[in-house]
Amino acid sequence: MQHPETGFLPGPRHTLPGAPGGPLAGLTFAAKDLFDVAGVPTIGGNPDWGRTHPVPSAHAWAVQRLLDGGAKLVGKTITCEISLGILGYNQFYGTPPNPAAPGCLPGGSSSGSASVVAAGLADVALGTDSGGSVRVPASLCGLYGLRPTHGRISIAGLLAQAPTFDTVGWFTRDAATFGRVAAVMFGEALPAASAAGVLLAEDAFALADPEVSAALQPAAERLGAQFGGLTRMTLGEPGELETWAGQRNILQRAESWATFRPWIEKENPTFAYNIARNLAGGSAITAEQVAVAKVVRRQVVDHARRLLEGGAILCLPTTPFPAPPLGLPLPEIDALQARIGITTSFAGLCGLPQLNLPLGKVGGKPCGLSIIGWRGSDERLVAIAHDLAWSGLGVARTERWG
Amino acid sequence: MQHPETGFLPGPRHTLPGAPGGPLAGLTFAAKDLFDVAGVPTIGGNPDWGRTHPVPSAHAWAVQRLLDGGAKLVGKTITCEISLGILGYNQFYGTPPNPAAPGCLPGGSSSGSASVVAAGLADVALGTDSGGSVRVPASLCGLYGLRPTHGRISIAGLLAQAPTFDTVGWFTRDAATFGRVAAVMFGEALPAASAAGVLLAEDAFALADPEVSAALQPAAERLGAQFGGLTRMTLGEPGELETWAGQRNILQRAESWATFRPWIEKENPTFAYNIARNLAGGSAITAEQVAVAKVVRRQVVDHARRLLEGGAILCLPTTPFPAPPLGLPLPEIDALQARIGITTSFAGLCGLPQLNLPLGKVGGKPCGLSIIGWRGSDERLVAIAHDLAWSGLGVARTERWG
Repeated sequence: MQHPETGFLPGPRHTLPGAPGGPLAGLTFAAKDLFDVAGVPTIGGNPDWGRTHPVPSAHAWAVQRLLDGGAKLVGKTITCEISLGILGYNQFYGTPPNPAAPGCLPGGSSSGSASVVAAGLADVALGTDSGGSVRVPASLCGLYGLRPTHGRISIAGLLAQAPTFDTVGWFTRDAATFGRVAAVMFGEALPAASAAGVLLAEDAFALADPEVSAALQPAAERLGAQFGGLTRMTLGEPGELETWAGQRNILQRAESWATFRPWIEKENPTFAYNIARNLAGGSAITAEQVAVAKVVRRQVVDHARRLLEGGAILCLPTTPFPAPPLGLPLPEIDALQARIGITTSFAGLCGLPQLNLPLGKVGGKPCGLSIIGWRGSDERLVAIAHDLAWSGLGVARTERWG
Repeated sequence: MQHPETGFLPGPRHTLPGAPGGPLAGLTFAAKDLFDVAGVPTIGGNPDWGRTHPVPSAHAWAVQRLLDGGAKLVGKTITCEISLGILGYNQFYGTPPNPAAPGCLPGGSSSGSASVVAAGLADVALGTDSGGSVRVPASLCGLYGLRPTHGRISIAGLLAQAPTFDTVGWFTRDAATFGRVAAVMFGEALPAASAAGVLLAEDAFALADPEVSAALQPAAERLGAQFGGLTRMTLGEPGELETWAGQRNILQRAESWATFRPWIEKENPTFAYNIARNLAGGSAITAEQVAVAKVVRRQVVDHARRLLEGGAILCLPTTPFPAPPLGLPLPEIDALQARIGITTSFAGLCGLPQLNLPLGKVGGKPCGLSIIGWRGSDERLVAIAHDLAWSGLGVARTERWG
């Protein structure tokens, strides 16, 4: 498979002007090829999907929102097949480059969106995050990237995957731009940065590569120092993060299968082997497995509420490792994907906002620190990111947002 | 998916002259795209297979044998992906037409080979049969087609699948041509037609559509009348044919996975969903399942020896139904494939030769009667087919072979 030179879809670039005079005037944005753009096929990273679905006649909500805000659409970006895949591979369109770690995977499934922002080809890019598809490429490409509170941002016009997990997020290179977009997406001015303390999940840090864990400690300590003090704690009982990941996996894969089953059974589409294998795994999940996983989810949500509803934020490594090299064999890919699932499942299960801060480097490659707040704390997380950047730790423009 | 007009691979047709003066002079043949032809990529019905394997520098044994015998190669034919698939679908190259049942599936995986012979575009075509891939398209396209005794014909130069099941067979429209090819492939003159009686497997007939069962009774009775009398019997205990099919499936899929695993794990190739799903199913088969299936296989082989070693032949419907229509959804395809597995597994498990006789029609569509003999009885089955044709029941040329 030849890999593409950029994260944009091959062929003519679809561009649309933003509304004049909006708050995002001067910014360019790209949209993952799961978002409808009127008149342009939504291919979803899988040629058979594109071939068997009508060309959309309206923009997705998020695309329209950014256009209305004044940002200019500069293209659609490669996604992993029908949003499935966390490392960024696509066997049909190729794997977008990781400009922050040449020769390495960009992360996925919002691979092309992260790639074009990291390359400076767009200021902003829309992604989706069901199982980590914004957070992971943000970490591996060194970007700010938010998985919002589940249900905060409309998924209208999106090639959806798993209803209780699907969210719409975005990437930027700097915190100030991130804040400008957040104000438009959420439709309200951003609050002052504040938190009732910072919880550092030692069990999550222990699951990361030691170099990643070490690289993220200074940022976590700075975060604690600025926001009410750092408390080192364990998020779960021993082994529990892995258990949560397994149950999140059951729920998400069962939902994905339910979403895609009618199409698959009608069309028998072509997929990369591991994508089809994982869908087939979803088809084999039993109602009892789902029922158990839902009980686990309720328990984890209660636990999260106790920890975070009072205003604390939780920090943990977004990914346990920096960008892996291209060309790994499938068993290694599977093992890496399983490890990523452990750090992404807590927010996913609980519908919590999680923001990647591009504050670590290991061997020259980015690795991100995540902050997680209670439901609805999205803007506060964005404000915290900006404050950290402003205070010199992060990657910021020198102006605050207006 | 656009379907092709013929069973030949798209693009330039690869032709090679046969040796002058051979016993097959004047015959044309095609080769399923699992057989190597020197200088031509072996694609195996999957573009990623073709892309990731070297162009062969020698002909497969069977191709060379037919060329040496004087037959002219007139092209390579579409196969189901890497020989997996029994109804004839291919999502990359399209499903070859069934000239004997327009708008219907040709059967597979030797779909293109059966198609071009049935269309009169070649006199002979090479196929392979691991789980039924010659027998099934022969039945659905109304052709003579043999799965030889396992190990009788070299699989050198073949894209192999499951070592204890893989065989090389061929198709013709008439019994006389079939015999000419058999004499060359087996390297010896064909014997007189004879059998120590004919066993009619009533339990296998009962699993077929009633119309198929009824359509094949006259041929079975004629067979019995000519070859020592017809004995109606049950092949297995109640439900046992289904059990054998399940155990055959376990063994074949475990072997297929072992064959393709290194390639799949290295390349993560693209497949139609159901092909990948079935391979993934093979990857999940346990050593204990395989051990149990091997015990079952030994029991079935002992049973077959008792029935057939003395020279009797067994007859049963090759497929439980005539060619199904194109465009079925996956659950219906799966159900049909499972039913076919029941009638094909006995010979497959036991390594026995099974020859499809195109002697039935249901609603204008062909459906075949199979004859099965003990190991090594291949030539005798061919001679029986020819005698039946000669005596007016089958489709024969008017001359006997020399």
